[in-house]
Amino acid sequence: MEAKELLLHEVKQNDVTIINDKNNDTTNDLNSANDDNHLINLEKGDPTMFCSYWKKLDNECSVTIKASELISYTINHKEADFFGQMPEFVEAVKRVHRVVGNAVTEGRYVIGGTGSSQLFLVALRALASSVRKTTNGSNSSNKRIPVVCAEPYYSFYKEAMEQEKSELYEWQGDANTFKPESNNPYIEVVTSPNNPDGRSRKPVVKGEGGVVMYDLAYYWPQYTPITSPADYDVMLFTLSKTTGHAGSRMGWAIVKDQEIAKKMKKQIWLTIIGSCQEGQFRATKILQFVADRYEHASYYKPPNNMYVPKLFQIEGVFDYGHRILAQRWEKLRAIVQRIGVLSLPDFSPGFCNFFQKPTSSVPAFAWVECKTVEDAEQITKKLKIKTRIGSRFGSSVSERFIRVSMMGDDHDFNLFLERLSSLATMELS
Amino acid sequence: MEAKELLLHEVKQNDVTIINDKNNDTTNDLNSANDDNHLINLEKGDPTMFCSYWKKLDNECSVTIKASELISYTINHKEADFFGQMPEFVEAVKRVHRVVGNAVTEGRYVIGGTGSSQLFLVALRALASSVRKTTNGSNSSNKRIPVVCAEPYYSFYKEAMEQEKSELYEWQGDANTFKPESNNPYIEVVTSPNNPDGRSRKPVVKGEGGVVMYDLAYYWPQYTPITSPADYDVMLFTLSKTTGHAGSRMGWAIVKDQEIAKKMKKQIWLTIIGSCQEGQFRATKILQFVADRYEHASYYKPPNNMYVPKLFQIEGVFDYGHRILAQRWEKLRAIVQRIGVLSLPDFSPGFCNFFQKPTSSVPAFAWVECKTVEDAEQITKKLKIKTRIGSRFGSSVSERFIRVSMMGDDHDFNLFLERLSSLATMELS
Repeated sequence: MEAKELLLHEVKQNDVTIINDKNNDTTNDLNSANDDNHLINLEKGDPTMFCSYWKKLDNECSVTIKASELISYTINHKEADFFGQMPEFVEAVKRVHRVVGNAVTEGRYVIGGTGSSQLFLVALRALASSVRKTTNGSNSSNKRIPVVCAEPYYSFYKEAMEQEKSELYEWQGDANTFKPESNNPYIEVVTSPNNPDGRSRKPVVKGEGGVVMYDLAYYWPQYTPITSPADYDVMLFTLSKTTGHAGSRMGWAIVKDQEIAKKMKKQIWLTIIGSCQEGQFRATKILQFVADRYEHASYYKPPNNMYVPKLFQIEGVFDYGHRILAQRWEKLRAIVQRIGVLSLPDFSPGFCNFFQKPTSSVPAFAWVECKTVEDAEQITKKLKIKTRIGSRFGSSVSERFIRVSMMGDDHDFNLFLERLSSLATMELS
Repeated sequence: MEAKELLLHEVKQNDVTIINDKNNDTTNDLNSANDDNHLINLEKGDPTMFCSYWKKLDNECSVTIKASELISYTINHKEADFFGQMPEFVEAVKRVHRVVGNAVTEGRYVIGGTGSSQLFLVALRALASSVRKTTNGSNSSNKRIPVVCAEPYYSFYKEAMEQEKSELYEWQGDANTFKPESNNPYIEVVTSPNNPDGRSRKPVVKGEGGVVMYDLAYYWPQYTPITSPADYDVMLFTLSKTTGHAGSRMGWAIVKDQEIAKKMKKQIWLTIIGSCQEGQFRATKILQFVADRYEHASYYKPPNNMYVPKLFQIEGVFDYGHRILAQRWEKLRAIVQRIGVLSLPDFSPGFCNFFQKPTSSVPAFAWVECKTVEDAEQITKKLKIKTRIGSRFGSSVSERFIRVSMMGDDHDFNLFLERLSSLATMELS
């Protein structure tokens, strides 16, 4: 091979361009010939609606990582930090929560993991081993700690726990029907706003030996009014639902108790050593931008003729998210009302401390009930729309329900509405 | 706050500089006043010796990720790829193995995870649930599958398994003393070259119901002669020990059997959805560079006066790694010989197919025996050197042994040698 050819080859080989995003809503042709046969996947909560927002900030929020950076496991020289967590990441997480006012972080431990899905299992293990100890005085009990969540519950909980086959805990399903014996230990998972139905939730089991874990992935102002800073023992959040960066797999737990935090860190250490530093680095950049935008933009008045930093020109990500979701919900509700056989949950508006005005809940998922058929998938399959069937969210949840992601890109969402509209002329009753 | 101040603030806040690396050997002052009291941490296998290599390639191998990139969970539009693995990453892994000749990847499944530590547990679970099925005809058996590894074994295996408390398998320690009953199932872990002692290994248990998992983290030409491409059912590798990028937490398994691969993918999906895409993206860039360097540089002869791409100017990473480790081992052996009371394992040289010449094993860890004391840590503590004591590597391993990382930065390694030299004048017998 000639040098020139080689050089070209090198450039080609080393040019790892990112080609894998469903990035750009605008490049999709709404009228493409294939659209009629295109299977619209609204089954998973892939938050691609955020792509067009971040597109405008591509340069402001890009990160560059050089070959020799982020090599070491250790984040800094202090032995205490061998755990592999960037102090900048923790600080950015705390700043965003302070700015939004959705969670107390002062004096709390922030523990990062590969998505909140990993942290869910890590927190469960820490809580289960801790309540086994507390309740029995020793760790000798071999009974598995029951884990419950009110139906409809996020389908992942059951599936993840069942595949894990832990001897520490076991999935026992619906919290509404669960009755703990005397002061026996249990763990209740509270997802608020709830996935799939968007409702605000509180614990339902009244037992003395119970501990509660809060999955607050959707407790952000784009989805629901922020009424007060959440202040619970264990709270889970994820970048996926905060800013839309799902590919980074960056989640965090906010933990009150030092012993639980220690157990969780030890597990993270023993399973993954720490989460990917490239991901932490990028999450830090994104979260810092979001915090800056909301900390300063509200009282910034640029003098005439002065350069206005991009930070202050652009809509905040929570405003964007809420605006898009509110538009989508409005359109969906209008169609559902016209069709008549479908129904959606209703939410009362609440005063959002973050937006400083009343806002409506516009959840990340629509929990759609079809009143006239036994199996709502019959309809969605006809319409070539992939959704998640009600029974995945609990054994007593009717298959008349389906969960539909509201977070996809414009193209898919519009096609979904279009196909749903056609239902009015179909035989449904 | 004035606009100018705000702008400065913004720049400061958004400028997430990477300050956490023990990056630059050259900035360390060998004669600093603090050196005498400095605790040298050679306990963990942090591969910071690679920093100065990559420093020279900072610009050639940097990656930039824009705000709107890597947002989606999905890597491309095909449903089959929802698993969250970049095809480019898989291809780069396969290319490097082809170029090095250390593992067969044709027709194999490559599964990425958050470091090989996560994949170790994921693979164990897949193998354990599979052998339980195979052996009993059904999955009804509740017996835990024994997992063993010949002593001295990598201390992580026992610790990770014990904290996990799986009902699928249990740690049963030393493979040398393990006797499986009739054709009962078991899993043997074979680490080759072995951590801590650098020896090449084969399975030691002779049982009919057994399966073997190979941890080949150190089967790279910088550590040991590559004698043939490894071709086993389940093999684990990690970027940490391949190129030194430990902070990325990128590991991969190479799996022969489709069912095992499916089980592993499902678990990854259910615990983390996929590994961090920023990490995959960067690993791809680094691995592609390494493959290019070795694929082309050997037969490249630049014409006079022509620009020579950096790719061809620079020593390959495996040459660099082997050169540095060989120098360190030589120095260490010289001191150990002089002192007399310590000993190191000996390795016969082997023909390395990759380097196309005989090379010696220069393992990532030195497995040091102190012949005159019961507890080798007595000595290392006096010398303010943190190492890992022999008993961590198995219950019958003597505390006369310590494991010392050979992969740290120059400064720490030189200080280690200096302090070790002082032993000659100390009372040891």
